[in-house]
Amino acid sequence: MCRWIAYSGTPVFLDQVLFRPQHSLIDQSLHSRMGVETTNGDGFGVGWYTPDTTTPAVLRDIGPAWNNRNLQEIALHVRSGVFLAHIRATTGTAVQQSNCHPFRKGRWLWMHNGMINEFPRLRRELALAVDPDLYADIEGSTDSEIMFYLALTFGLDDDPPGAVARMAGLVESTGRAHGVPHPLQMTVALSDGERVWAFRYSSEGRSRSLFFSTKVDALRALHPDATFLQDVSEETRLIVSEPLGDLPGAWNAVPESSYGVVQPGQDVLLPFRPVLPGGSRPA
Amino acid sequence: MCRWIAYSGTPVFLDQVLFRPQHSLIDQSLHSRMGVETTNGDGFGVGWYTPDTTTPAVLRDIGPAWNNRNLQEIALHVRSGVFLAHIRATTGTAVQQSNCHPFRKGRWLWMHNGMINEFPRLRRELALAVDPDLYADIEGSTDSEIMFYLALTFGLDDDPPGAVARMAGLVESTGRAHGVPHPLQMTVALSDGERVWAFRYSSEGRSRSLFFSTKVDALRALHPDATFLQDVSEETRLIVSEPLGDLPGAWNAVPESSYGVVQPGQDVLLPFRPVLPGGSRPA
Amino acid sequence: MCRWIAYSGTPVFLDQVLFRPQHSLIDQSLHSRMGVETTNGDGFGVGWYTPDTTTPAVLRDIGPAWNNRNLQEIALHVRSGVFLAHIRATTGTAVQQSNCHPFRKGRWLWMHNGMINEFPRLRRELALAVDPDLYADIEGSTDSEIMFYLALTFGLDDDPPGAVARMAGLVESTGRAHGVPHPLQMTVALSDGERVWAFRYSSEGRSRSLFFSTKVDALRALHPDATFLQDVSEETRLIVSEPLGDLPGAWNAVPESSYGVVQPGQDVLLPFRPVLPGGSRPA
Amino acid sequence: MCRWIAYSGTPVFLDQVLFRPQHSLIDQSLHSRMGVETTNGDGFGVGWYTPDTTTPAVLRDIGPAWNNRNLQEIALHVRSGVFLAHIRATTGTAVQQSNCHPFRKGRWLWMHNGMINEFPRLRRELALAVDPDLYADIEGSTDSEIMFYLALTFGLDDDPPGAVARMAGLVESTGRAHGVPHPLQMTVALSDGERVWAFRYSSEGRSRSLFFSTKVDALRALHPDATFLQDVSEETRLIVSEPLGDLPGAWNAVPESSYGVVQPGQDVLLPFRPVLPGGSRPA
Repeated sequence: MCRWIAYSGTPVFLDQVLFRPQHSLIDQSLHSRMGVETTNGDGFGVGWYTPDTTTPAVLRDIGPAWNNRNLQEIALHVRSGVFLAHIRATTGTAVQQSNCHPFRKGRWLWMHNGMINEFPRLRRELALAVDPDLYADIEGSTDSEIMFYLALTFGLDDDPPGAVARMAGLVESTGRAHGVPHPLQMTVALSDGERVWAFRYSSEGRSRSLFFSTKVDALRALHPDATFLQDVSEETRLIVSEPLGDLPGAWNAVPESSYGVVQPGQDVLLPFRPVLPGGSRPA
Repeated sequence: MCRWIAYSGTPVFLDQVLFRPQHSLIDQSLHSRMGVETTNGDGFGVGWYTPDTTTPAVLRDIGPAWNNRNLQEIALHVRSGVFLAHIRATTGTAVQQSNCHPFRKGRWLWMHNGMINEFPRLRRELALAVDPDLYADIEGSTDSEIMFYLALTFGLDDDPPGAVARMAGLVESTGRAHGVPHPLQMTVALSDGERVWAFRYSSEGRSRSLFFSTKVDALRALHPDATFLQDVSEETRLIVSEPLGDLPGAWNAVPESSYGVVQPGQDVLLPFRPVLPGGSRPA
Repeated sequence: MCRWIAYSGTPVFLDQVLFRPQHSLIDQSLHSRMGVETTNGDGFGVGWYTPDTTTPAVLRDIGPAWNNRNLQEIALHVRSGVFLAHIRATTGTAVQQSNCHPFRKGRWLWMHNGMINEFPRLRRELALAVDPDLYADIEGSTDSEIMFYLALTFGLDDDPPGAVARMAGLVESTGRAHGVPHPLQMTVALSDGERVWAFRYSSEGRSRSLFFSTKVDALRALHPDATFLQDVSEETRLIVSEPLGDLPGAWNAVPESSYGVVQPGQDVLLPFRPVLPGGSRPA
Repeated sequence: MCRWIAYSGTPVFLDQVLFRPQHSLIDQSLHSRMGVETTNGDGFGVGWYTPDTTTPAVLRDIGPAWNNRNLQEIALHVRSGVFLAHIRATTGTAVQQSNCHPFRKGRWLWMHNGMINEFPRLRRELALAVDPDLYADIEGSTDSEIMFYLALTFGLDDDPPGAVARMAGLVESTGRAHGVPHPLQMTVALSDGERVWAFRYSSEGRSRSLFFSTKVDALRALHPDATFLQDVSEETRLIVSEPLGDLPGAWNAVPESSYGVVQPGQDVLLPFRPVLPGGSRPA
């Protein structure tokens, strides 16, 4: 169980989004309101894109986000237009840097809230489905990283929603083959630096919460005191697993079994269904 | 704001006291019920005495206690008859090993829950009052460590309650001289391996909670399922900043401005009053 | 490239073996003389057996051994008759606790110096050969841990030398199938708490160094100043990847392609040859 | 004993200076050639200035620099025109973030190689000389941090060389009063983001090494393969405690008892002498 936030829009100092809002992500690391666990202190990570490098930067550490000075330093001194941040509450796997989100491969960042049920029983079979050329790059032991590598295996570069659907389908079918009820629970955010995709899905149709921010002009009207909102473009969007507390009324819940794309031009919100290994979608 | 536990009695594996009880100290690190802060994830420490070494061992680390594997290992494999454990929630000072409790000097262990109000304003003057021969051994930046070094300066080796009273008196008088309201808030536990002293005091007379366990035979009658209680002596005692959840009715609240001594023979509970620098006690 | 030490004999404080000798393991972490790398600062671990617990304790951390205070504390306060200690110099895999040696499973401890050549190319196939019931317990990303799990898969509980020979054979055959020259380089120590096995082997017949200590009475005659030697039994033995500096002339080099067993009664030194998957031994 | 580097010039990715040169600072953390200690693995730090923030950023951690992924990430993604980096080998004080260089106060960064001899005996008296309004901000336990706070006390904002001279004078006189031979050994770098000052001094006139890079056009002629040199201005300078290995012949040793200033316009190199507390300079 974790919490995360994705930002896309006018470049801002990370601090303005991660630390300053009243019920910020960092605050949620100490006491989340909507999470299954109230404390998310088993590591954190932030990944950000800058115009002049081809791959995103990632800062991850194994302690809590709330007392990490390096995170504060970076947040106060780094400006970015697309960034993802995550706070972790382990469901049992080791507290180590390689298990912290976001995960990175090439230009991609990936982070996840949720779990693969009974993952220890499914881990080997899912790992075997990862492209053998990618397998050696798996560094940690989480379900979330395996999900990322499965999506990479299934065509993330060319068709992100399709790759995620095929990943989810494989988890569903593998879980069912092993008699696991409700194999998958996920909200996932991923980005290539240009667009941000966010998925909300669970086998049982009761997925973890996920919210998009409303249009910036509406936010501004609601929150004349949030100074950074004055300076950001109309297209700026936040996607969060739990709303920031100082922006009431500014959040749209993403429906069950949906995914959204924040991108230059019109954002989209579409239904999401896993694609089973044979290519069919589950009934 | 922190939580702590002190154990004195029949040697047991630390795990039986630190991890297994329902609302154990480790559980309190994730969600304390009575603490000012609900999360105590800014470091931890445990110090224990063994018969065949002259100084106690101390294991301290800067991450949360709840996910620390080395702590689990030690707790499962080390047996001790006198040990102190502490989980930290910083009030602003750095999260570093040298700020984690218990602090050790020679055969002494010291741990503290509470604070010196407006410590940054008082820090220099209090540090100057530390015995110059001890000053260089101060490694961290907390009020708690300064309190320990002041008690060492004021005769801890010979008269523990007197040394703590003089320490508290100096904090009171220094605070008042600087116009600090309610300078001191503390529950303190200390040990020399033979006895354990625990103090409850605050300037305003509203001290943090502190509890002694009742007699073991009463505990056993209440909790036939707590197996380790079957094997411990009648003299075994726990002193805690917050009761362990699976031992309801087994705890005596320590009165305001009091201290207790757990020792071979009769334990004692006595009033505590700071001794001001001139030697008088405050009105 | 790493360094390690295994101790079997009269229970001593770990400190006497790990820290006090002149060219101790901890000293080797700063400047090894015989290692491929002179600095071994990418994590460390120590595992020890005690009479009253069924599984060994393991303390591991990701920083250097030479400055780790918790290691010093444990070494000064824990006494054991069988313990293994390891200092790590990563060959590329992540610096994380789950990649630190010794690895533990049940009553077994395992540590390794050396490498599987081109491990990223072989990792997946070797991981697939691990017993599916054990696969989910793999936490790290090292070749060393996979070697341990392969040995567990191949019967470590019943026949340690045979299991290690089958593990080595699988690495040899898998490596050769992928065109990897000299797939395996290893010195390995393992223990079940009763006995300690140590293996020296490499595909090219130029294995990393490995030494057994000579008989204790010879050591005593050479080193009247090493006080702890006065108190240990005749059967006490040290196995090391690099001799401790203050015991010159007291070490026997283990021959190429050999393994030794330190045990109650007569120790043994025998030839070691990998057993290929079909059951044959390589030419 | 430590190693450090200061950069001033055309903004570059930190990686180009910290990691890529053949005998880079990071390489020196594993095996320094000129240092008293060959391994500098007790923490590290880097501080950098950017045009759009008023205070520099600082990233510090307690493990070795050579295996720290967050440092690599920052180095690959952050560009700066003035930055200071430091690798630490403790002389006994705790390995903790607050003891890692560079230290920061307001717009100032400070880092130090060397030591105050017998610092434990002098620590209290030197700490008392720190401006009481600054004392509470001291977080660590090193001589280096006290030296910084003394320089701040003695007018660093207005007269950096004078403040450092008065700091050095106080250390000299305090040391002598306590019978400490050769109280001070230092190379110090400091910056306000506009200029970089570097000092070389020791009581006995045998100071740790210190080098300035020669003019960039000379460097370019010597090293046509160092691509980043092609893009930096003529004014770009490096100041290092040990030359980078791939730039032979490109370094000028700073003379004993001297300091240099790298600044817009003409750099300067001047003699340095401590100023004793009464205002005089020592004979």
